[in-house]
Amino acid sequence: MSLDTVQFGEHLIYDAYGCPFEVLNDENLCKKILLDLCDLAGMHALIEPHVIKSDGSIALNGKDPGGFSGFLIIEESHISVHTFIKRGYVTIDLYSCKEFNTQKPLAYLNSVLKPKNADILKMTRGLKYPKENIY
Amino acid sequence: MSLDTVQFGEHLIYDAYGCPFEVLNDENLCKKILLDLCDLAGMHALIEPHVIKSDGSIALNGKDPGGFSGFLIIEESHISVHTFIKRGYVTIDLYSCKEFNTQKPLAYLNSVLKPKNADILKMTRGLKYPKENIY
Repeated sequence: MSLDTVQFGEHLIYDAYGCPFEVLNDENLCKKILLDLCDLAGMHALIEPHVIKSDGSIALNGKDPGGFSGFLIIEESHISVHTFIKRGYVTIDLYSCKEFNTQKPLAYLNSVLKPKNADILKMTRGLKYPKENIY
Repeated sequence: MSLDTVQFGEHLIYDAYGCPFEVLNDENLCKKILLDLCDLAGMHALIEPHVIKSDGSIALNGKDPGGFSGFLIIEESHISVHTFIKRGYVTIDLYSCKEFNTQKPLAYLNSVLKPKNADILKMTRGLKYPKENIY
């Protein structure tokens, strides 16, 4: 018997360059971005946002000058943010089993992070997701 | 002055179908997968793995029958796992600022999750990452 399938979800990637130092060096802003993205995309948080400071590492080919890493588990999947303060770089993922419009989340990110430019990609995930329970 | 740039990182996506119910319905296995992937890819955890149970939601177009969601913040970025138990589906992300070989992580995931098939994709991230600090 063949299985009816649907697309599982969508995944927005936002990798931004040339953000101001003080914007990336702000733990509370990282928490706020996680919660605001959740709201703007119409999603629902399952936990409080979890943000930690990393002092960086010389072991990673000198790539990591330190920054904040944050995560929010949402009903729909997850949202993550990582800042690399001294490089002006921030990398954000918004992964949801619910389709969402990227217009408001992207306008918001550009407004608060003030990047010089950004790589933006929206992917589909789980194209062979079963439409009904199999167990 | 033009800026020297390097590739920031790599992101492995593993979306697997037809996994056994009992494999996906195992909170401890979700924690173990997060830690084992971290080790197999030569990465370093910054926190304990965080795994929560979701009871599912009828609001998400009936897509979410419930499962476990977990994440691990690592020095190199993050690892996440979401199981949708009654659909036999699991979706995993391994995102690192360090290049990594996918052979061992993928062999491990196929061995423990026993999927019928999987969508596997390795992406590059942050292609315009500054080679040196800009602040």
